[in-house]
Amino acid sequence: MKVGSNHYRTIWIDANNPEFIKLIDQRHLPHKFVVESVSSVQQMAIAIKDMHVRGAGLIGAAAGYGMYLAALEARKSKNFDLHMQTSAEKLLRTRPTAVNLAWAVTRQQKSMATTNDLDSKLRLAKDTAEQIADEDALHCQEIGRVGVEIIKEMAAKKRGPVQILTHCNAGWLAFVDFGSATAPIYEAHRQGIDLHVWVDETRPRNQGARLTAWELQQEGIAHTVIVDNAGGHLMQHGQVDLLLTGTDRTTRTGDVANKIGTYLKALAAYDNKIPFYVALPSSSFDWKISDGLREIPIESRNQEEVKYISGLSGKSIKQVQLCPKESNASNYAFDVTPAHLVTGLITERGICEANENAILKLFPEQKIPQNKTINQSNEKQVERKRSGST
Amino acid sequence: MKVGSNHYRTIWIDANNPEFIKLIDQRHLPHKFVVESVSSVQQMAIAIKDMHVRGAGLIGAAAGYGMYLAALEARKSKNFDLHMQTSAEKLLRTRPTAVNLAWAVTRQQKSMATTNDLDSKLRLAKDTAEQIADEDALHCQEIGRVGVEIIKEMAAKKRGPVQILTHCNAGWLAFVDFGSATAPIYEAHRQGIDLHVWVDETRPRNQGARLTAWELQQEGIAHTVIVDNAGGHLMQHGQVDLLLTGTDRTTRTGDVANKIGTYLKALAAYDNKIPFYVALPSSSFDWKISDGLREIPIESRNQEEVKYISGLSGKSIKQVQLCPKESNASNYAFDVTPAHLVTGLITERGICEANENAILKLFPEQKIPQNKTINQSNEKQVERKRSGST
Repeated sequence: MKVGSNHYRTIWIDANNPEFIKLIDQRHLPHKFVVESVSSVQQMAIAIKDMHVRGAGLIGAAAGYGMYLAALEARKSKNFDLHMQTSAEKLLRTRPTAVNLAWAVTRQQKSMATTNDLDSKLRLAKDTAEQIADEDALHCQEIGRVGVEIIKEMAAKKRGPVQILTHCNAGWLAFVDFGSATAPIYEAHRQGIDLHVWVDETRPRNQGARLTAWELQQEGIAHTVIVDNAGGHLMQHGQVDLLLTGTDRTTRTGDVANKIGTYLKALAAYDNKIPFYVALPSSSFDWKISDGLREIPIESRNQEEVKYISGLSGKSIKQVQLCPKESNASNYAFDVTPAHLVTGLITERGICEANENAILKLFPEQKIPQNKTINQSNEKQVERKRSGST
Repeated sequence: MKVGSNHYRTIWIDANNPEFIKLIDQRHLPHKFVVESVSSVQQMAIAIKDMHVRGAGLIGAAAGYGMYLAALEARKSKNFDLHMQTSAEKLLRTRPTAVNLAWAVTRQQKSMATTNDLDSKLRLAKDTAEQIADEDALHCQEIGRVGVEIIKEMAAKKRGPVQILTHCNAGWLAFVDFGSATAPIYEAHRQGIDLHVWVDETRPRNQGARLTAWELQQEGIAHTVIVDNAGGHLMQHGQVDLLLTGTDRTTRTGDVANKIGTYLKALAAYDNKIPFYVALPSSSFDWKISDGLREIPIESRNQEEVKYISGLSGKSIKQVQLCPKESNASNYAFDVTPAHLVTGLITERGICEANENAILKLFPEQKIPQNKTINQSNEKQVERKRSGST
């Protein structure tokens, strides 16, 4: 998507040196645009854990590239497999909630397991990393094409802009390109549909105020930043037509883990009969689990992220303390919205209701909940799409 | 309540010069404890509007003292009544949502209208201002005595601390003393009941993180600051026994206007079968209205309060910018929780359900919705209490 007048992805192999991965270091946005070079799996693990990169799809892509960097290191080490194993574990430890992370690491492991030749393993690691990233961008683009129909239908029924409320950043910065929740918005804007986005600031890390607002501003889409407390009031007063978010992990039954606070917005949408759609590429489904509230691990992050906040002061980024130094704080990063509060899921294969039957109609190969099936089918899916008319 | 080892109220007449009103300037808390001297109705209007003082009861008390300052000025002016009228309008314009403001101004006007003698008017203005403040403190203390029973009952039924979640600051800083939502908490703590308070930070002005956390810390009560997004997750996971807030205005039917975001927490409490009690002195009832969503005016404040935030940086308080400079923001200060989401109201006269019948059983003199009845009955009520055993 656009940064100024240039097109960017969030992560890519350095064209000048393919042993380096470039990524947008999102910690500095919207105040500074910083591109970081990463050349070891250790650096990539830090970039994921400390949220230089974040968001379901991008965490998956970064883990994919991380495994490629690990393979580069492993090729020079004494024990290829041991280094790969340690690296996989290192990456898996970084963020517990986003399922894309484990999905990408497993996909890399399975791909490399198809050969014993170390050079082939390395080549496969690079190819798979690129495939994961390309697939992510492609799936998000498809989500845009599928999801725009919902916005189009709303626009046809009303005067004035379609009012969309989104929480956190499920924009292109959370993926490789296009985004999940934002993809239908970008597509609608491209088609000339009048719309306006309410952007939840999304405390504690303010991914809405910092990232979503910045993305929308770069793309010239009308938007208004609000505090996370405001959405219910707006919904009560007819100022929201559609609640649209991403997800970090969705169960095969349609329970949605997403940034903390999503559940509260879902309750308000339900109470005010406003549709709540969740946009996700199939890599964000966890096909193994059925009970989101019990089975999805919720990351608990450092309390300093609640007690302190960063922002622009003059020309530099400063951190300020918000509450008494002596007060405790807690910092759960995600919550789970039960499926019955979700109107529908927007996937690269189409829209479905948030229940197991409907989901499995779109993803019939997942009827037997086995890990193996996932990757094979996704790979086929992308092959089919690549050779298609897109 | 306690500041260090001293006892403070939030507002009082300067003992050395009764033409000055002293108040705690809450904008600097928790980082600095600043007491401001106010000597004109204009200064008091600014103190209310710019939130040196805030909170339902304290806004009422400040307006009461503001009318006293106005009377001091009026006594020296050519037209006493004209100056009082202009001053009343000035005060009424400062904050539209809190009903205590209009209630206190009207009460002063009615009190002064009982005499034509200007010196008597001035004396009455001072006495009434003191009465409003005393009554506020007394009513909050009663709320504590009444409301502690709810906490006591919960403590008897469980092991470990009673977990209370509160939004914004309905503490003593929002009143003259004791607070509304905090009064039962302080009373429970005094009685040795084990409890822990989840403190919503309450964006955009962070009255929870700044003020409630500070109050609880001064009183030595266990608490944890959380972002406004977190409450739903805690409720889903059995970590909240009681949602307890204040209100800026409650209708005769039990609809509750309170800090923006209260409605979202009320929805989550309802969804998780957690009781939601609202604590309020009778001065926060608006006896004239029955439909909170339609009839309570919701204050919209400057968008800069959303785009920028202040906090401690080193030893000074700095403001930092949170989102792109070009992004719009909106800033609704309150929302309305429909009565059916409220388990009960804790008033100085007892606890009742949030519906007109139940409320009027406690306040039978309000059966005919007339303004006049309110003040008379409240005055009687306080007289009765003062001469009683309290």
